[in-house]
Amino acid sequence: MSSLPPGPGPTNLPPALPEGALRVVALGGIGEVGRNMTVFEYDGRLLIVDCGVLFPEDDQPGVDLILPDFRAIEERLDDVEGLVLTHGHEDHIGAVPFLLRLRPDLPIYGSRFTNALLAAKAKEHRQRPNLIEVREGERRKVGTFDLEFFAVNHSIPDALAVAIRTPAGVVLHTGDIKLDQLPLDGRLTDLAGFSRLGDEGVDLFCVDSTNAEVPGFVMPERDIGPVLDDVIRRVDQRVIVACFASHVHRVQQVLDAAVRHGRRVAFVGRSMVRNMGIAAELKLLEVPDGLLVDLDQASTLPESKVLFVSTGSQGEPLSALSRMARGEHRQISIRAGDTVVLASSMIPGNETAVFGVVNGLTRLGANVVHQGNAKVHVSGHASAGELLYLYNAVRPSNVMPVHGEWKHLRANGELAIRTGVSPDNVVIAEDGVVVDLVDGKASRTGRVEVGHVYVDGLSVGDVGESTLSDRLVLGEGGFISISVAVDSSTGRAVSSPTVSGRGFSDDPKALDAVVPLVEMELARTEAEGITDTHRIAQAVRRVVGRWVADTYRRRPMIVPTVIPV
Amino acid sequence: MSSLPPGPGPTNLPPALPEGALRVVALGGIGEVGRNMTVFEYDGRLLIVDCGVLFPEDDQPGVDLILPDFRAIEERLDDVEGLVLTHGHEDHIGAVPFLLRLRPDLPIYGSRFTNALLAAKAKEHRQRPNLIEVREGERRKVGTFDLEFFAVNHSIPDALAVAIRTPAGVVLHTGDIKLDQLPLDGRLTDLAGFSRLGDEGVDLFCVDSTNAEVPGFVMPERDIGPVLDDVIRRVDQRVIVACFASHVHRVQQVLDAAVRHGRRVAFVGRSMVRNMGIAAELKLLEVPDGLLVDLDQASTLPESKVLFVSTGSQGEPLSALSRMARGEHRQISIRAGDTVVLASSMIPGNETAVFGVVNGLTRLGANVVHQGNAKVHVSGHASAGELLYLYNAVRPSNVMPVHGEWKHLRANGELAIRTGVSPDNVVIAEDGVVVDLVDGKASRTGRVEVGHVYVDGLSVGDVGESTLSDRLVLGEGGFISISVAVDSSTGRAVSSPTVSGRGFSDDPKALDAVVPLVEMELARTEAEGITDTHRIAQAVRRVVGRWVADTYRRRPMIVPTVIPV
Repeated sequence: MSSLPPGPGPTNLPPALPEGALRVVALGGIGEVGRNMTVFEYDGRLLIVDCGVLFPEDDQPGVDLILPDFRAIEERLDDVEGLVLTHGHEDHIGAVPFLLRLRPDLPIYGSRFTNALLAAKAKEHRQRPNLIEVREGERRKVGTFDLEFFAVNHSIPDALAVAIRTPAGVVLHTGDIKLDQLPLDGRLTDLAGFSRLGDEGVDLFCVDSTNAEVPGFVMPERDIGPVLDDVIRRVDQRVIVACFASHVHRVQQVLDAAVRHGRRVAFVGRSMVRNMGIAAELKLLEVPDGLLVDLDQASTLPESKVLFVSTGSQGEPLSALSRMARGEHRQISIRAGDTVVLASSMIPGNETAVFGVVNGLTRLGANVVHQGNAKVHVSGHASAGELLYLYNAVRPSNVMPVHGEWKHLRANGELAIRTGVSPDNVVIAEDGVVVDLVDGKASRTGRVEVGHVYVDGLSVGDVGESTLSDRLVLGEGGFISISVAVDSSTGRAVSSPTVSGRGFSDDPKALDAVVPLVEMELARTEAEGITDTHRIAQAVRRVVGRWVADTYRRRPMIVPTVIPV
Repeated sequence: MSSLPPGPGPTNLPPALPEGALRVVALGGIGEVGRNMTVFEYDGRLLIVDCGVLFPEDDQPGVDLILPDFRAIEERLDDVEGLVLTHGHEDHIGAVPFLLRLRPDLPIYGSRFTNALLAAKAKEHRQRPNLIEVREGERRKVGTFDLEFFAVNHSIPDALAVAIRTPAGVVLHTGDIKLDQLPLDGRLTDLAGFSRLGDEGVDLFCVDSTNAEVPGFVMPERDIGPVLDDVIRRVDQRVIVACFASHVHRVQQVLDAAVRHGRRVAFVGRSMVRNMGIAAELKLLEVPDGLLVDLDQASTLPESKVLFVSTGSQGEPLSALSRMARGEHRQISIRAGDTVVLASSMIPGNETAVFGVVNGLTRLGANVVHQGNAKVHVSGHASAGELLYLYNAVRPSNVMPVHGEWKHLRANGELAIRTGVSPDNVVIAEDGVVVDLVDGKASRTGRVEVGHVYVDGLSVGDVGESTLSDRLVLGEGGFISISVAVDSSTGRAVSSPTVSGRGFSDDPKALDAVVPLVEMELARTEAEGITDTHRIAQAVRRVVGRWVADTYRRRPMIVPTVIPV
């Protein structure tokens, strides 16, 4: 069915970049959804587009964030002319503070709202980034790169696409994009601008792949307003609407509905309060005087006169909404007849958590409205129908699908081909695959190493695959520790073995058989004249491991400690 | 919007059951999808319907299975007249071997295929259950309970609903049900029989809630055949179809398509091979002579002449399909242009795993066909439209939604109300909530304790909430162990502390600061004259815990061991 060049691409190191050629490599964001970061190189100079984080999955336990892998550029940070941010979502700006640790004065180009969100984030990291505001329609030289910015719409205001002109050719990077033809703020994706650029000739088109598998078109954001209206009208108790904390237009529609139905509004959740404050200040969110109340005031109002706008739409266990679902929220306890609206998508991987919240709320008697039973959410990413418009406007020579897992990238590539792009000129380049644009032809020429860089607590990078694999073992089976002191000259045990298990069994007698077993083994090692504590520990590990496999058919971690005294 | 009685129901112990009344309590399966088990009591005698397992979620790490909680009946197993199995899925029969450990001679009533699957399972447990075959249309006294069985269709052949007549009233339990009007085997859900029973009067109707939220009707299973045909026709390389190992009709359609396109078929996966063997023997699966080959033979055939039917449709990491997606399968390595069909649903909670498999296969160049891009799956559970047919046929006095999470139960209750059932007579009774049918009126009268019973390896029940909570801590943060031998009379350390971390950091120097810290603390406890090893251990835990929180902002488990010598 497919005519795309197959497979994950080359494994060789990239060749030297020919003179007059442009190089592109993603250090995150291709082959996954998150931590977007693409590096462009021309004539020894670098330009970065976006620098976001990825949220960990089940097989990355205990990790807070995953960063793009900066190794490919860390020796060349002085060659970087600038960082362009397409919009203010975490998967596009979340890793900037970590890049700034390596290059604090890095010039950062973003729209007004994007920069405001980044400034707030940088403040938490006690950083003062070098922010330069740009806007749609603007053209600006950034070192050797000649940039032009285009308005695009997405699920956050003030998003931009960027064209990068170099002597090697013209690149157009969409960022995250959709083509809402009736956007709430009237700010259309600049398809006319893309067409003009297409007339000039686009050599490489980097295109958002998120919804390439979804046929048709995304419904306009403004169609959600009447649905919210309809829900709120019928409720005479509390209404709680959860959505993403950066989705200003969604929140605007909630506020408008609240006004129409005579309800005051309280924001719930730190990021919601913060972002809506910024949005209101920048006049991106219109808040009528006297509409907002704080949580304490809200609890003094009649239930039919208040509406809460909350975070927690992804089932985050510590969020206000999850606490309400468990009956643990300090100020808001859900009663039968309350209505909760999840005006949000369900990010893959969060289904169980979200369903858990829905069930918890339902169990307490709330009516839960979500995208499964009402049109209270639309995606921020172009569906296949919209992507066809993009390809036909831009008419690119080469296409590089970005922002997606393999299935999305492939589907996006197929769409490009259907609009007339030659299959040879569609490059699917997962993280680390190097794409060179030489004489107008893009191809995959090599690969640099791109691993997962984990943030856990305060430190970056010290948690790696070996720690994660230990966590997986411990999380599945717990551990059994056996500690014993031995005389280092004779190898004789001078204490009885101390055995304890954690995460192994609730039964206090579960490990009773281990002490005599270990004592027997220690008598054996002593009899054999073994005094090396490592060898003794290994013998203990072996005998306990075998016992637990036979007795329980389980595989806890066995942790022997032999202390020489 | 809802007129259902709110909330999770009573918390008091149930009262004594009035004479002539019927009691119903679910020990699993209501408020969750899985481990279905419902107990009926009349005149001191018990009847059980189904006894299945639940598969664990993320917050139940390392657990293999979750059983219904037998405690409410374990003192009364001699009062049990029998166990009725509605069909052969794991969530309805998987816990039977564990119940048989408590009562080996329990009479078990099931259809031919159900009993054959249970017999195969029991054999693995070295049990010989007392199986009694029943079939649709049959009426049979089981002690004080007068049973009648009805054909229903579902995603496994030979499923039954059961009517339970007692002097207290007539109960109809659907089991898992849908109303395919063109079933592949011609075996319709016996709506006519339900109507006759409705004429007689159904006092309590226990109804499958799984798809109550889904509007409309499930497409006929047989409509999948042409879609499969269409996919296979266009492929001249290998085709791999993954589906549930008990979905005989789905597999039948795959075999039929293989025959039409001149492909031989190999079954992949232990349960697929076993179940299809049973189905063929019982003539539920029609296998033309010479169609089947084994995996070794399959690898000698031209790629356009073979089709694999595989397990692994839920992304199970050890399944054949997952191994193919990772390029680790011994006999089948995926090449560009191969086609993989996931002819299956995605069970909530498995999304990440399934998408991982899809992306792995796509990355290797396979075309992956799934329910997101082709009609290759239909549900086994009635949608709202079908449930309305059921309610209108049965016209029950009381309704008890079963088989579902809270949101499903609520939605199902609302449907009953819309067909005319009084809201007061719809009882939503999560696991453990006792429902009494007294003088024709069902109500929630109390609650028995129903917990999670975990199977981990060979043992049942010794892994409980405390072990799981330790596993969650260890899985998130690993542990730091500190072992030291002390003179038990003076409290003086006689060894240097041995410190090691697992699941904490990949950095070998990460814990270098701990040894001097602990030594200082031990000097302090010694100076204070503390000799009690518990108190010393606590002091060590405190100082290391504080250090790790300050230095890393992480929360590993701190495991001090103080050995008296």
